[in-house]
Amino acid sequence: MNSKAARKDPHFQRVTIIGVGLIGGSLALDLKEKGIAEEIVGVGRSRENLDLALSRRIVDRAVSDPVEGVKDAELVVLATPVRAIIPTARKILPALKPGAYLTDVGSVKAPIVKEMEKAGVIYFVGGHPLAGSEKGGAGSARSGLFAGNRVILTPTKKTDSRAIRVVQEVWEMIGAQVFNLDPKEHDQILAAVSHLPHAVSASLVQAVFRLFPGEEIRRTGAGSLRDLSRVSASPPELWRDILSLNREPMLAILAEFRECFTELETYIKEDKPEEIFEFFSQAKRYRDAL
Amino acid sequence: MNSKAARKDPHFQRVTIIGVGLIGGSLALDLKEKGIAEEIVGVGRSRENLDLALSRRIVDRAVSDPVEGVKDAELVVLATPVRAIIPTARKILPALKPGAYLTDVGSVKAPIVKEMEKAGVIYFVGGHPLAGSEKGGAGSARSGLFAGNRVILTPTKKTDSRAIRVVQEVWEMIGAQVFNLDPKEHDQILAAVSHLPHAVSASLVQAVFRLFPGEEIRRTGAGSLRDLSRVSASPPELWRDILSLNREPMLAILAEFRECFTELETYIKEDKPEEIFEFFSQAKRYRDAL
Repeated sequence: MNSKAARKDPHFQRVTIIGVGLIGGSLALDLKEKGIAEEIVGVGRSRENLDLALSRRIVDRAVSDPVEGVKDAELVVLATPVRAIIPTARKILPALKPGAYLTDVGSVKAPIVKEMEKAGVIYFVGGHPLAGSEKGGAGSARSGLFAGNRVILTPTKKTDSRAIRVVQEVWEMIGAQVFNLDPKEHDQILAAVSHLPHAVSASLVQAVFRLFPGEEIRRTGAGSLRDLSRVSASPPELWRDILSLNREPMLAILAEFRECFTELETYIKEDKPEEIFEFFSQAKRYRDAL
Repeated sequence: MNSKAARKDPHFQRVTIIGVGLIGGSLALDLKEKGIAEEIVGVGRSRENLDLALSRRIVDRAVSDPVEGVKDAELVVLATPVRAIIPTARKILPALKPGAYLTDVGSVKAPIVKEMEKAGVIYFVGGHPLAGSEKGGAGSARSGLFAGNRVILTPTKKTDSRAIRVVQEVWEMIGAQVFNLDPKEHDQILAAVSHLPHAVSASLVQAVFRLFPGEEIRRTGAGSLRDLSRVSASPPELWRDILSLNREPMLAILAEFRECFTELETYIKEDKPEEIFEFFSQAKRYRDAL
């Protein structure tokens, strides 16, 4: 018998998912479909959403109280909006079955991981599936959402090694590509590739429409503005929460952006076409390598 | 006989196109295909590109000297890179056949229109087809490029009314949707919907890669950065020329952007989640209405 055959895939009698939306609901469907969980308990504040989750057979049982919901669960997934993860974790920690694994799907990691380490929780593994962040409730959940998509895990030196392995295997069994990052590094990189672009897009849209509130913009077809403003259609609650929680990395990347923007502005102001050319050439080289 | 039947569509014995690239070459193909021009003369500096234009039957005759090229032409189209339009116009004006119509396809309009009015040219109609701005030479030209796309014309009070009608009809005959703007208004609006987004995209790419020069960005899949950086793949020469030529409107919209960006930055710095929410909500309302 080789080691691969000997390896036992994770299997749980009960998994509790707190927050049955696009991410939590889709994860629930996959866990059942792949036979990873026997029973899924869904926790949420909206009775309507829980009833939908039940009728779609996304969850087997639905409760509104997270403390009641995590009872006897072997794996608990925090899939609430990101601002609710820390307060919810504080509530459920004392009620967790000893040895239960805990993970989350929040878009910001360092403050959450820090909170868990402060509480001495070694079975927690921070996670962030990069698979759509729109809200949508249980109605938007679908199986296979994570197949082929990336999931970042943010274990630390203090994290239990079995917990790391189990959470990684769960994601891999449903088809995700898992890789690890330090929680702070995660937040800095996500600030750069996701949070900054959203901040820049919103600022761009604001600037254009404050200067041209009429029909002029639409009449032109809106050109590249359309491309750059697409992400501004995403839910403002999400960005309020992410930017508030990821404050320090955001301020660092915003400062870097301001510096680059000012550099280009100065070249235009001082009429330096060759410097403008170099600025755009370098940006093109970076983009082409992406 | 009603007025529609009486109206005579434009028809030219000779049209000269200066600059046989994507825009100039595609226009040449359409003019021949729709029977608007009997003979197309192509003017360009690259012999290789002109030979390609000849072999693809985009032009009937090719010359390198613009003064020679415009001889006896009834319509002349300036389709060079935008920085070359004014110098080229200066050269050809004395050689134009009396009464010949002149138009251009430059992405910036006020400086060009101003130059023509200074020279007393009343048969010039500024034009800007919004149909792709990548360079590409005669190899990228194709018929039908303008069908269904917008073309902005920028006539003024001094422009000959017949010239306005003829240039508009030419574009409409090849399927474009034509509308008029004041040249300065054109430059301000294009600064907002096109030039600013390119400046912001390049600054974003620069900021992200200066802070993360390694593989980190690519490993995450690059998220929304990918969306917002797409336009940064376009030719840097183009943006050097446009931003240099459209300096004043650019500085105005860059200042407006800076103000909006600073507003959001301040909300994050001062930890004001409800103001962040309002900022993103307003941006979403603008974007959803686009």
